[in-house]
Amino acid sequence: MSSPQTLTPQGAEILCVGTELLLGEIANTNAQYLAAELAKLGIPHYYQTVVGDNETRIHQALEVACQRSSLLLITGGLGPTPDDLTHAALASFFGVEMVEHPQLWEEILRKYGQRGLVPSPSNRKQAFLPRGAAILPNPLGSACGLIWQPRPNLHVLTFPGVPQEMQRMWQETAVPYLRSLGWGKEVFYSRVLRYWGIPESTLAERVAPWLAGENPTVAPYASQGEVRLRVTGRAPTREAAEALIAPVVEQILQISGEDYFGSDEATLASVVGELLLQRRQTLAVAESCTGGLLGQLVTGIPGSSRYFLGGIVAYDNRFKEQLLRVDPKTLQQHGAVSEPVAAQMALGAKQVFGSDWALSITGIAGPEGGTAAKPVGLVYLGLAYPEGKVEVVEYRLGSLRGREGVRWWSAQAALDCLRRRLLRYPLSGGSPEPKLEEQADLGAGR
Amino acid sequence: MSSPQTLTPQGAEILCVGTELLLGEIANTNAQYLAAELAKLGIPHYYQTVVGDNETRIHQALEVACQRSSLLLITGGLGPTPDDLTHAALASFFGVEMVEHPQLWEEILRKYGQRGLVPSPSNRKQAFLPRGAAILPNPLGSACGLIWQPRPNLHVLTFPGVPQEMQRMWQETAVPYLRSLGWGKEVFYSRVLRYWGIPESTLAERVAPWLAGENPTVAPYASQGEVRLRVTGRAPTREAAEALIAPVVEQILQISGEDYFGSDEATLASVVGELLLQRRQTLAVAESCTGGLLGQLVTGIPGSSRYFLGGIVAYDNRFKEQLLRVDPKTLQQHGAVSEPVAAQMALGAKQVFGSDWALSITGIAGPEGGTAAKPVGLVYLGLAYPEGKVEVVEYRLGSLRGREGVRWWSAQAALDCLRRRLLRYPLSGGSPEPKLEEQADLGAGR
Repeated sequence: MSSPQTLTPQGAEILCVGTELLLGEIANTNAQYLAAELAKLGIPHYYQTVVGDNETRIHQALEVACQRSSLLLITGGLGPTPDDLTHAALASFFGVEMVEHPQLWEEILRKYGQRGLVPSPSNRKQAFLPRGAAILPNPLGSACGLIWQPRPNLHVLTFPGVPQEMQRMWQETAVPYLRSLGWGKEVFYSRVLRYWGIPESTLAERVAPWLAGENPTVAPYASQGEVRLRVTGRAPTREAAEALIAPVVEQILQISGEDYFGSDEATLASVVGELLLQRRQTLAVAESCTGGLLGQLVTGIPGSSRYFLGGIVAYDNRFKEQLLRVDPKTLQQHGAVSEPVAAQMALGAKQVFGSDWALSITGIAGPEGGTAAKPVGLVYLGLAYPEGKVEVVEYRLGSLRGREGVRWWSAQAALDCLRRRLLRYPLSGGSPEPKLEEQADLGAGR
Repeated sequence: MSSPQTLTPQGAEILCVGTELLLGEIANTNAQYLAAELAKLGIPHYYQTVVGDNETRIHQALEVACQRSSLLLITGGLGPTPDDLTHAALASFFGVEMVEHPQLWEEILRKYGQRGLVPSPSNRKQAFLPRGAAILPNPLGSACGLIWQPRPNLHVLTFPGVPQEMQRMWQETAVPYLRSLGWGKEVFYSRVLRYWGIPESTLAERVAPWLAGENPTVAPYASQGEVRLRVTGRAPTREAAEALIAPVVEQILQISGEDYFGSDEATLASVVGELLLQRRQTLAVAESCTGGLLGQLVTGIPGSSRYFLGGIVAYDNRFKEQLLRVDPKTLQQHGAVSEPVAAQMALGAKQVFGSDWALSITGIAGPEGGTAAKPVGLVYLGLAYPEGKVEVVEYRLGSLRGREGVRWWSAQAALDCLRRRLLRYPLSGGSPEPKLEEQADLGAGR
C-alpha cells in the first residue's frame, strides 16, 4: 500500500512520550489514531518514535525528529505529576523558559470546581507553556497542549496521553490549524462497511476484484465477530474522494446481502434502534449470562428510550421463575441453559414489559460451569415476535473467547438476530410512537 | 517515572517496519509485546521507532538507532512481496551483500508442500540473508529472521510482523540468545495499587517521597476515574525484586486509606464480590440510565452467581413503578432523576430479589434530556442496606465525559459506594452462603 510520500519533502512525525509504552503496559493506540488522521488529511508521515518520561531522551528524540520532520505531533507527559515533563523538555530543548498563562490556571480551577474539587498545587505547572507557544485547548481535562513554531519549517503540537482528550483536541483545533497551514490539500476519505455473520476470508474472496485497486483501496479487517471493509479514496477534495469511492461502495453493497448491517459509525445496536423506530415498535430484554450487557448495548444509543422499555437480569434461577415466569418444571427438566428456557425468558420479558419484541440470552460464559453435554460457550438466544411466536437460536462458541468474549459475542449475535427479522418485518403496525413531549420526558430519565 | 537507565550504558530499541503502521491501519501490538518482554528480562529499553517499507528511511532509522542503542529488535518487512525489504536494507546499510542459505529455500519448499502449495519465485528472496547473519528460525511461517552482530556492541534481531510468528521466534530463540549474552540477569517486578475517589495529583502528593525513588520506582497513572500507583523493583531474581518493593507497598498502603480498593488485577466489581462473599451477603441492582452496565460489571466476575441475584433495568418510568414499586406520586413530584426515586428503586430491588444489599442508578446520561435544574451528568446512586435503611448519593458529572463516560463512571461509583459501606460492615450475619452443589448449579446457569 503506497503511503502519501509525494506531498511535501518533509512530513509529520508522531512522538509519543510515556514510560508505560516502553514497559509494554499499553498499546500505542494514540499513534494509530493520529497516523490514520494524518492519512485522511493526506499529510505525509514517515516516522513514529516512542520515548520515556526522561528529559535527556526526549531531547535526543527531538534532535532526531527536527532533522527529518517538519511537523511534530507529541502525545503524553502533560499531567500534573513530576514525571510529566514534555512541555518543560520542549522549552529547554529550544532554549526558552516556561511562562505562566493565568487563563489556564483559571480554567483548571473552573474545571475542578465543576466537579466540586480543588486542584492541588502540582496542577499549577499545567498553566505553564514554553515562551512563544500558543495554547492548544483541552475542553475535557486540565492538561492543555501547545501549538508552536519554534523554528522555521517546524511546527510542534502537543496532546495529553488520554485518548478521548487527545482526539477531541485533534479534531477541534489541530485539524483546522493544519489545514490553515495548507496541509491536507489531498484528502483521504474512507467509508467503513460493517458485516456480521460472515468470515473475513469469505468476504475477502467475494470482493477480491476490488482488493487490488490502488485508488480507491479496499481492505478487510476482522474483530470480535464483526468484519469490516474499508474503502478509501484519495483526491484533492473530500467531495472528489467521496465521488471516487461511491461507485465501488455501491457495487460492493449490491453483493453484500444481509450480512452487511451498516456503515461507518453504525453498530448492531444503533441499526436495531433505527429499524424499531421506523416500525414504531418496542423492545425488552431478559438476560442471564450477559448480566445486563445486552441492555447496556441497546441503551448506549442516544434516544433509545423511544423504543427500549427495559430488561430483567435473572441471574439466579429463582428469578427466571418469579420475574420472567419460566416454568419451574422446564428449568428442572432442561436446566437454565436450554432452548425452552430461552424461549420462556423471551416470552416472559415481552409479557412483563408489554413490548413488541423481546430478546433473551442464557448461556455458559465460563470459565467454570461447563459440562460434556453443556460446554462453556453454549448459548441460547430467544426472540419473541410481536405476534407472540418465539424463536430460539443455539450457539456453541467454545471456551477460547473467554468469559467476556462469550458474553460480548452473545449480546451482539442477539442484536443481529433481531436485526435480520426486523428487515423482513413490514413497516406498518406495531405500537404507536410515544408523543414528543413524552419522549422528551422519557429522555430526561436517561 | 524513571525507566531502568542504570543497567547498561545503552539499551534495546524496537524498530517496527511497516507502512500499515504509518497509515494507522493497525495498532503496534508487536512493540507492546516486545517492550513487556524486555521489561520482564530487565533489559533497558528507551526507544521505539516505526518506519515505512522504504529503504532510505529504514537506513535513516538504523543510523539513529545504532548511535543510541546496543540491541535492535526489528519487526516486519520479511515477506516475499517487493515492499518487504528489511533484510536487504540491513545488508546495504552495513555494507555487505545478501547471500543465499539453501537450507532456508528447502525449508520454504517443505512448508508450502505441507499445505499442498508451491512457493512463488518471489519467495526465493526469503532464503537470502546479509553475509555474516545467522538464521533466526521461524517454525510457523516462511519468513525467517536473523541474528547478527554487524558491529561491536551492536546486536540485531529481526522478526516477521505476524504476531504469532514473532512471539514464537522470540520465546524459542531470541530469549535464550539474549540470556547467553548476559542480558536478563535482572528482572523487573511490579505491583499495581488501585484507587477510586482521589485525584491523581492528590495521590501523587501523598506519595511524593517515593516518586523520586530509583529502585523501586513509584509512578501514578489515571484513567476514567481510577488512579493507579505502579511500584516496580529491579533485582537479580523475581523474589528479590518482590522483597525490594514489599516495604514500599506496605508503607504506601498504610497511608492510602479507603480510596485504595485493590491491587494488580482487582477491580471494584471483584473487590465488592469478595467483600460480599466474606459476609455471605447478596446483591441486586436497579438501573435506569446505565441500562444494565452495573449488572454486567458485577457479573463480569467468575462465580458472581454466589452473591449476585439479579437486576431490573427500568428504562421506561412505568416499570420503575410496576417492577420496582416506585410511588407514582414520587415520580410525578420529583421526576425520575431524583433522590427519592433512587431511594425507592434501591428498596424496590432489595424487596423484589430479597437481597441483603441493593444498588440503584438513575441519571441523565445525555446528550439530550438535560435541563437547568437537572443538567446532563446529574446522577443519583441509591444503596439499600441489609437492615432496610437506604442511602442516596448525588453526583454532578457534567456533560464532558459524554454518554458512555457518565454511564461508566456512575456504575463504578455505585460499586465504590457499596465497597466502602461493606468495609465497615461486620463479617457476621447476612444470608447464608448457598450450598456447594447449589453454587455449581447456579454457576452452570451463567
